[in-house]
Order: sequence, then structure tokens, then C-alpha cells
Amino acid sequence: MQSPETLGIVAGNGVYPRLIADAAGKAGVGKIVAAAFTDETDPTLEQHVELVEWMRVGQLDRLLKFFRSEGIHHAIMAGQIAPKNLFDLRPDLKALMLLGKLKERNAQSIFAAIADELAKVEVALLPATTFLEDSLAQPGLIAGPKLSHRQEHDVELGWDAAKEIARLDIGQTIIIKNGTIVAVEALEGTNEAIKRGGTLAREGAVMVKVSKPNQDVRFDVPVIGVETIRVAAESGVRVIAVEARKTLLLERDAVIALADTMNVSVVAR
Amino acid sequence: MQSPETLGIVAGNGVYPRLIADAAGKAGVGKIVAAAFTDETDPTLEQHVELVEWMRVGQLDRLLKFFRSEGIHHAIMAGQIAPKNLFDLRPDLKALMLLGKLKERNAQSIFAAIADELAKVEVALLPATTFLEDSLAQPGLIAGPKLSHRQEHDVELGWDAAKEIARLDIGQTIIIKNGTIVAVEALEGTNEAIKRGGTLAREGAVMVKVSKPNQDVRFDVPVIGVETIRVAAESGVRVIAVEARKTLLLERDAVIALADTMNVSVVAR
Repeated sequence: MQSPETLGIVAGNGVYPRLIADAAGKAGVGKIVAAAFTDETDPTLEQHVELVEWMRVGQLDRLLKFFRSEGIHHAIMAGQIAPKNLFDLRPDLKALMLLGKLKERNAQSIFAAIADELAKVEVALLPATTFLEDSLAQPGLIAGPKLSHRQEHDVELGWDAAKEIARLDIGQTIIIKNGTIVAVEALEGTNEAIKRGGTLAREGAVMVKVSKPNQDVRFDVPVIGVETIRVAAESGVRVIAVEARKTLLLERDAVIALADTMNVSVVAR
Repeated sequence: MQSPETLGIVAGNGVYPRLIADAAGKAGVGKIVAAAFTDETDPTLEQHVELVEWMRVGQLDRLLKFFRSEGIHHAIMAGQIAPKNLFDLRPDLKALMLLGKLKERNAQSIFAAIADELAKVEVALLPATTFLEDSLAQPGLIAGPKLSHRQEHDVELGWDAAKEIARLDIGQTIIIKNGTIVAVEALEGTNEAIKRGGTLAREGAVMVKVSKPNQDVRFDVPVIGVETIRVAAESGVRVIAVEARKTLLLERDAVIALADTMNVSVVAR
């Protein structure tokens, strides 16, 4: 697509929002601003965008007004809000009204409703991979040693289970060893699931992370970063299998270099 | 059924083997012996049976010879082997041959193969609930306050997810709050899943534990004990929902008394 003139980043935690900001700048976006969340967003983001508006998670009205007052017509959601903090949510009136209208409340329905509210103030939500197409995992072995027969088998088994878990809207990550699923990710997040599964499996576990069937790419794409590799290696997880063309390798070169160094295989299929 | 004259207990951890021994004794079984596992079986079991033979997990040949030499023709598997220890398994030759013949290795296939080996030495494996029929959960509210509308809804949602997880042979327990699944049990076991889910949900989570579809009742039945109630209460889990007539409430009276005291609802459906 042609780069928009302005971009608003709805900035979760980690490096993702910063990477989006830098990539959007390189792609020629003239004005980039970010809606940032207290205790979530990395404050160094301020050095990568023109303007940051700090708010609490749940201040939907403030988000909408901020984007409108800055003349934003395209936005990207980048980076997670630590899921456990969602239980601390103090929604403003706008957010309360949005939640009240929803029949089912899950990530998908809430984000879709937020997208509708953004559309009403003429902000279109772009796919979360926009500007980062080069960081999408390509099929095949991306880093580390070739998989053993047994590891291939674990990827195969773990893949089917992970897809089921994702379909059920539970999580997207499975840790498996020798055909036994040792950990399933739910609300604790990928890193905690890796730590638990790796410890239970002792050494040589395989991690599988997949996208949801019918995942709305505007809200959420599976992401692997430097921290994922580090946590995996320290937990004895030796293989990370992801979905090709649907998974972002954030800071791709650093991810590959660290995986090679730490002897963690990264493979996409 | 008529009580057998002798009984061998394959004794995992916790109070379950001891309860089986006492119940079998009351039911008139003349001779009760136990195959016990180092670092797993509670040593006080020795005071509840005629003879205990201590072995490592994986010493299948020793188990078979023990039961044969003691003239055992009926056995019950009671109590878990901590799943994480299964990765430390040092199988003897008999167990190696058994494992080698299996196409798929999961709890179900391994236990079924062990049952076959027991059958060859004329030991029949009885349902894990034998002698404990009075401890099976009956439908309805068993302890604690009546469920709120929201808790009922969480039980409903969690039930379907737990059944899927169980069907996939992953685990049998789900922790859910306000429609969001916060934790899924895999190899870490029920108590760890409760702790994690309860902490993530802060307060007021609902736990659902179900049986597997087509669960072979000789090997494994869902179990709730005093420790389950204690861990749940301390983790802020306020409801435990289980499957009626398929779940053992171990030390039933103590479980109900503690749940009432700690304000944890136990419900079966």
C-alpha cells in the first residue's frame, strides 16, 4: 500500500511499537504519534515518534480524542497489554458503553468494537504487520541446527494441539516433549508458558506457536523476539516452530543471531 | 461386585492408596498388599496394608513378580505418579519392551499395555473407584455457597473448554474468570494450574475439572481432595465444578467441611 501521511500507534509493551515507528518513518510516513499506556509502554518510544499521549488502559475516549485532535486517519495496534492487567481495567464511560453493548467479551470482540469506534472518528486500523513485512517468518529453517526426527514429530503433534487451543481462544503456544504436551499457554503469556514447560520437560522441549484460525491481523499476530529466544534457551527449549508468513520475528537479525548462538532452532511452516 | 480375596494396590502419591486400602479392608478383602514407588508413595501406607514392596517407577518386571508371588489376582491403580517424574523414568527390560511395542505413547496407551501385562500374570485391574463408590460426587451443590449467575456462566464455558482439552489428552482442568480462560492444566498437575490461574485472575476464579471422553476408569479418575480445596481457597478460586458420578471426593467429609469453612463452592454436574 501507499504509505499514509499520518500514523497513530496504539502502543503495548516491548519493542514492537518502536519498530513500527521506525519502519513507518523509513517508509515515508510524515507524522507518527503514539497512544501509550502507563506501566505498559516502553517510555523510550518517545524518542521514536513525534508525540506520545500517556493514558491508562481503558481510557478509550481519550484515545479517540487524541487521534482525532492530531489528525490521525490510520493506526496500528502494536505490542501486548500484559493480559493480567486487563483484570485491573478501569474503563472510562466510552469503554463501559462499548463493553456493555457486547454480547460476548473476548479479545476478538473487544478489539473489533474498538476498531468500530476508531472508524467512527475516521481512523482505519491497519494490519499489525504493516511496515514490517520483511520481518515475517519465511518457510523453512530460520536459525539453529536442523531438527531431529523426534523434534519434527513433536512439531507435528504440537501443531495440531496448538491450533485447537487457538481455535478455542485459549492461547497460541504449546510446549511438547517426546509426544507429551507439557504446557499450554492461557492468560500467563508465552514467556511464562515456555518457562513452565521447559522446566517440566527438563531439557530438549519443543515450542509451537501458531496464529488463530481467522485471526484478525489488525489486532494480533504471533510474535517472536529476542526475549523469546533467551527465555527458551534458558528453559531448555531447543526448537521454536512458528507459522510461516503469519509470525513476526521482531528485530529479525538479532533473533536469528541469538538463536544461532544459543543453539535454538527456529523453524517456520 | 463380590469382594476379591486378595488385592494389590499400585500406589501413587497422596492419600488415595491408603483410602483404597482401608475401604477394601472394610469390604472384607482378606489380604491387601501394595506396590509402592520411591519418592512418590506415602510411607505411612505400610500401616494400612499387609505388605509393601518398594520399587522405582518403571520397574514393571518387579511389579509383576511381586503380585504373582503374593498370589494377587485383583489390583487397583490409585494415586498419581507426579507427571514430571515420568521424564526421569528408568524402565527395566520388561518396561522397555512394553514401550518399544507401542506405536503411540501416552498415558492411556502405556497404562493399557501395563494392564495387558498384568492380565498375563492373571491380575485383573479393577476400576480406580472400586470400594470408594460412596465418595463419588453426586450431582448438585456439594459444599459452599450457591453459585452466582456469572459463576454458573463460567462453569458452562469452562466445561466445554475442559472437555476439549481432555479430548486432546492435554489435561483435565481449566481455570476461568468472567468468561476468560486464565489457565489450562497440562503436565504440571491440577494444584499448579489452580495456583497459576488463581493468581492471574486475582480473586473469584472458577475451576472446572472433567473426565476424559472414553476415560478408562481403571487408570485414572478425576480426584478432588482436601489439598485441592486448600490450594483453591488460597489462590482465590471460589468454585470447583466437577463431573458427577465420575469424580472422587477423597476424604469426602473433610473435603466438604473444609470447602464450607473456606467458602469454596463445590458443585457437580
